[in-house]
Amino acid sequence: MDNNLTQKRIDFLAKDYCRGYIKYCGLQALKIKKGSFESQVLIGENHRTQDNFIHAGLMATMADHTAGYSAFTMVSENYRILTIEFKINFLKPAYGSALKCRSKVINKGKQIIVSESKVYDVRNKSEKLVAKGIVTMMVVPVENIAKTKF
Amino acid sequence: MDNNLTQKRIDFLAKDYCRGYIKYCGLQALKIKKGSFESQVLIGENHRTQDNFIHAGLMATMADHTAGYSAFTMVSENYRILTIEFKINFLKPAYGSALKCRSKVINKGKQIIVSESKVYDVRNKSEKLVAKGIVTMMVVPVENIAKTKF
Amino acid sequence: MDNNLTQKRIDFLAKDYCRGYIKYCGLQALKIKKGSFESQVLIGENHRTQDNFIHAGLMATMADHTAGYSAFTMVSENYRILTIEFKINFLKPAYGSALKCRSKVINKGKQIIVSESKVYDVRNKSEKLVAKGIVTMMVVPVENIAKTKF
Amino acid sequence: MDNNLTQKRIDFLAKDYCRGYIKYCGLQALKIKKGSFESQVLIGENHRTQDNFIHAGLMATMADHTAGYSAFTMVSENYRILTIEFKINFLKPAYGSALKCRSKVINKGKQIIVSESKVYDVRNKSEKLVAKGIVTMMVVPVENIAKTKF
Repeated sequence: MDNNLTQKRIDFLAKDYCRGYIKYCGLQALKIKKGSFESQVLIGENHRTQDNFIHAGLMATMADHTAGYSAFTMVSENYRILTIEFKINFLKPAYGSALKCRSKVINKGKQIIVSESKVYDVRNKSEKLVAKGIVTMMVVPVENIAKTKF
Repeated sequence: MDNNLTQKRIDFLAKDYCRGYIKYCGLQALKIKKGSFESQVLIGENHRTQDNFIHAGLMATMADHTAGYSAFTMVSENYRILTIEFKINFLKPAYGSALKCRSKVINKGKQIIVSESKVYDVRNKSEKLVAKGIVTMMVVPVENIAKTKF
Repeated sequence: MDNNLTQKRIDFLAKDYCRGYIKYCGLQALKIKKGSFESQVLIGENHRTQDNFIHAGLMATMADHTAGYSAFTMVSENYRILTIEFKINFLKPAYGSALKCRSKVINKGKQIIVSESKVYDVRNKSEKLVAKGIVTMMVVPVENIAKTKF
Repeated sequence: MDNNLTQKRIDFLAKDYCRGYIKYCGLQALKIKKGSFESQVLIGENHRTQDNFIHAGLMATMADHTAGYSAFTMVSENYRILTIEFKINFLKPAYGSALKCRSKVINKGKQIIVSESKVYDVRNKSEKLVAKGIVTMMVVPVENIAKTKF
């Protein structure tokens, strides 16, 4: 197995990461390697709860989507990744100026990929682990996605 | 235990449900009873994935937040609800014109409340169960939330 | 789809349910229908914790295995069921004379089946819901199981 | 905070780990440090499935119980640990001669402790990661356990 992604593939993944709902939520790709993916969101007023924390839903979205793209680095362009399920623990309240998420593949089967996501709250210059997720995904041939859709 | 919420409490919960990130994501409260909460989001282009499905992150946010408010119906105004963790299974792809989420409390302890959330994809007039979540929450006295925060 | 199992298939599933580790733990099949499975264990000293509760591990084993057989009722004899992952919430302490578990399929895809398991603590004549699990499983052709194994 | 356990506490935890259902299942404590716990089970015929794998329920029991004792290393003798919920992913089939489980605390709050458990299949001299769990636990004063029980 080739352990490197081509620059073309990295550029594609970085751009593809940030579309639709993810773009709306302000998430961006940061670092991409085979088997791992790092993302970031700069926190604005739209990301907060009624109690002024960063919303758990944003952290969950980030944990899921970044895990999805860590899995996406493991397959060729003929495949897509669908999340079957995920679980996330919120360890500490988040209230910083940005979130970072680091996801890595912990098991790659032929049909199932499992990744873990760590979400960090960026406070001044320090990072604090605030959430940890585990995500189970399915590898789907691109032609089946099209069929499933409508 | 009184099994009814006052109209004042219902109005408060409906309004409080929809603030910050949740407002930004377009979620709205629909029906509120002691122990259950129903919400809705009308789907726009900003809610979709790169493959044109409704994003799993939106469903997860809805499952978490609506579960949180189902728990919130069980406590007095001196308490807040914090999500400790949740898990969500995505059962079918969602691509309809709206999502509905129905959450209900399945266990209320003194400190821990567990709720389940069902997310339905609204396609024309029919509803299809597309995701199911289970959410573990902590009951926190409001003065401790303030302390935790900053 | 035929919604009934043959008596032969029911007898096979009841017997097959209770082998190896499951037999050692004392679990037995109770009621079997297409899409659902009920099991029981009579509690003895070997099922308890250091604090005299029924051990969470026994409840988890029951939730997983019974969910597995609820999924097994949905496929033909050429397939096996493997658990990909599960999550279980412990709602109340269990200390009764028996546990019952009722599992039902909540989604059947071609490759993935999701079931829920409710575990009840039997105290005198009443039953109390003490744990709830959700189990994600894969449908595997029997010849692939053999290959995977050794 | 003192980062070392006394030898007396280590001896207590090793012995206490292996009682009731856990003893019946053959689990044993291996290595104990503040914040981490390692356990082992030698696999016999009673641990297998109908398809001759090691049963997922045994791995789940080990992941839960060992996580519980990793949390138990973090509190004084006036407290007990109760599992609120756990989630476990089965990454590969297990069929070796023993399982090892390594659990470590990833977050310690005042009331909630979260630990991760890795389960390894021992095949000849090598170890293979076969399951990964995350466990949410509550810290309970010992006098409340007694009250809860009967």
